[in-house]
Amino acid sequence: MAVVTLLTDFGTSDHFVAAVKGVLLARCPGLTVVDVSHQVPAQDLLAGAWTWNRAWPCFPPATVHLGVVDPGVGSTRRVVAAAVADQILLGPDNGLLPAAVAGHEPVAWWALDAPRLYRQPLSATFHGRDVFAPLAAALAGGTALAEIGTPIADPVVVPIPAWQVDADGCLHGRIVHLDHFGNALTNLPAEALPASCRVGVGEHTIPGLAACYAAVAPGAVLALVSSDGCLEIAIRDGSAARDLELVRGQAVVVTPT
Amino acid sequence: MAVVTLLTDFGTSDHFVAAVKGVLLARCPGLTVVDVSHQVPAQDLLAGAWTWNRAWPCFPPATVHLGVVDPGVGSTRRVVAAAVADQILLGPDNGLLPAAVAGHEPVAWWALDAPRLYRQPLSATFHGRDVFAPLAAALAGGTALAEIGTPIADPVVVPIPAWQVDADGCLHGRIVHLDHFGNALTNLPAEALPASCRVGVGEHTIPGLAACYAAVAPGAVLALVSSDGCLEIAIRDGSAARDLELVRGQAVVVTPT
Amino acid sequence: MAVVTLLTDFGTSDHFVAAVKGVLLARCPGLTVVDVSHQVPAQDLLAGAWTWNRAWPCFPPATVHLGVVDPGVGSTRRVVAAAVADQILLGPDNGLLPAAVAGHEPVAWWALDAPRLYRQPLSATFHGRDVFAPLAAALAGGTALAEIGTPIADPVVVPIPAWQVDADGCLHGRIVHLDHFGNALTNLPAEALPASCRVGVGEHTIPGLAACYAAVAPGAVLALVSSDGCLEIAIRDGSAARDLELVRGQAVVVTPT
Repeated sequence: MAVVTLLTDFGTSDHFVAAVKGVLLARCPGLTVVDVSHQVPAQDLLAGAWTWNRAWPCFPPATVHLGVVDPGVGSTRRVVAAAVADQILLGPDNGLLPAAVAGHEPVAWWALDAPRLYRQPLSATFHGRDVFAPLAAALAGGTALAEIGTPIADPVVVPIPAWQVDADGCLHGRIVHLDHFGNALTNLPAEALPASCRVGVGEHTIPGLAACYAAVAPGAVLALVSSDGCLEIAIRDGSAARDLELVRGQAVVVTPT
Repeated sequence: MAVVTLLTDFGTSDHFVAAVKGVLLARCPGLTVVDVSHQVPAQDLLAGAWTWNRAWPCFPPATVHLGVVDPGVGSTRRVVAAAVADQILLGPDNGLLPAAVAGHEPVAWWALDAPRLYRQPLSATFHGRDVFAPLAAALAGGTALAEIGTPIADPVVVPIPAWQVDADGCLHGRIVHLDHFGNALTNLPAEALPASCRVGVGEHTIPGLAACYAAVAPGAVLALVSSDGCLEIAIRDGSAARDLELVRGQAVVVTPT
Repeated sequence: MAVVTLLTDFGTSDHFVAAVKGVLLARCPGLTVVDVSHQVPAQDLLAGAWTWNRAWPCFPPATVHLGVVDPGVGSTRRVVAAAVADQILLGPDNGLLPAAVAGHEPVAWWALDAPRLYRQPLSATFHGRDVFAPLAAALAGGTALAEIGTPIADPVVVPIPAWQVDADGCLHGRIVHLDHFGNALTNLPAEALPASCRVGVGEHTIPGLAACYAAVAPGAVLALVSSDGCLEIAIRDGSAARDLELVRGQAVVVTPT
């Protein structure tokens, strides 16, 4: 019943994802492999981490989550693993994992190093296949982190966007993700939102929060609490990203009313 | 050996599909999950139903098919299930399922309601993860429809395009799908086609039916019987959709000759 | 523990891939199905074969690899299988398989013909579902090639681009694939490269080989040995295909220095 999930910036047109899965199945027969996403923008650690952060907590205990957004492949960057909430994440030591487990502390960190497991010949450009897949397969097959790694306290961390409250009680956050539907997800947690408020983004002001998309008319702009518990800006049956010209990183202000 | 299939308008770049799969595997360990498509145009019930209709009959008995094209998520729309031909389909009560089982009658309809199973906290925007996945997992794990639902006779129905025969024996149908290859699939069933006929679409006339793509020269326009038993318009080794400027919904006329 | 992989030009928006998987699971319950790619350019045998060639050797013994890039579907072209290195590939007899197993000789070739297994009604346009999936499921379930096929020595072969050495010791090859990252993969094997060399493509000259992407500055052009052991041209954290305007088939020259 072992499960391994995959998140990469590999795309799905090449052989990359299949090569990783082939090695996983060769090393751990009977494994269930699930794709999280392979459409992380190339080399975009924070975009990958955001998506990963929303996916891994849904999986059964002991799932092994492999993330490969790895511009430093072939260099001396470490391989790290995070043991968190009954699950294991592993990937390159470049900031991807700390952002992916944010909000799910405590986390036990490991540096993995087990060359005897690596696929040979070891390439300089495809550690997903040659290094990460063998390590993930070992962990999924029951190998303990202590057998292939060493505890560490210093994973590489890349700062993720923070939100603030100003002196007037206004919340200042950012759009951190634009999804497939064109909905804009922000970093403002629902529990910080005033009971009565208006939401401003660019030149647009949205009066108050809606209960769900269908609570407003088709084509109307709305703000609501997203499925990950944060403030979301949407257009019912439409694309807020396109029609409001929203971009990732854009400022969002919530004003108490 | 339980199998669940997924059809959604979620796309594959976000965490949405993985979150659904995580819940499915957490609730029903060992499950096999198969993607039908996640590229249904956003909120396009009939496009989703057409694709679903062609996929589910290929699966083994007792497969559970989950379809989520759900612009009414978070509102009071019901969850419905269809027991049809040894298989179960479930999804929102918005017309998706009746169109997906068209041609496969008889169908037994159920309204599902089992809040004790739903993932908590229940979101207002992602019932695929919080409502549908738990229900699908329960059904795949052997829970009977009667344990989590009530028989109904009134699922919401959205009309699907019909075809007609006129006084001259001409068949009048429509293009109901343009596939990845640019082939145009119509709603005219093969058994209704005259033995000798010509096919008209826009300004183009195609004389008679070909046996297969390779029966005509590369680049030639042809009409033939599609793999779902309907009239199809294609260009050998090319794209009829692009080169003939075909659009979904366009009229197609078959004239006996 | 049986595994079947799929490589097609079907795309992922239609029901095609799911229909194939449904038949596979109906015929061989418990099967693990892995996607290699469904984004092979329509009817492009050599592109599909290149990708397939890099994927199948990663899989466990006895994996069955189904490839469907099949412009001749419905005609009298044969179905062929290749037994190679403990694995089985099957697909249409149009050149796809010989290119996919190139470099992995010896190969035992079979023509498969088992109409009793085919899905009924047999369509003229979707042998992936009606012919290939039943055959692949039978092989994955333990049916011997000899039970459903006949040894042959004449699979259809489509020439794949070759490389040459000229009188000055210069290697003349071609770009044979542009990957998702915009890296250009060539047909020049690493073992043929001079210890000291420069690489020319279009108007660009790259002095020597780098050890990995991170060995050069972000944005710099580099040549290195790819993960499949051939010469690769890349831009660190960028797209060589886009920025150098590279195209598949383009000449690449390696000059000893």
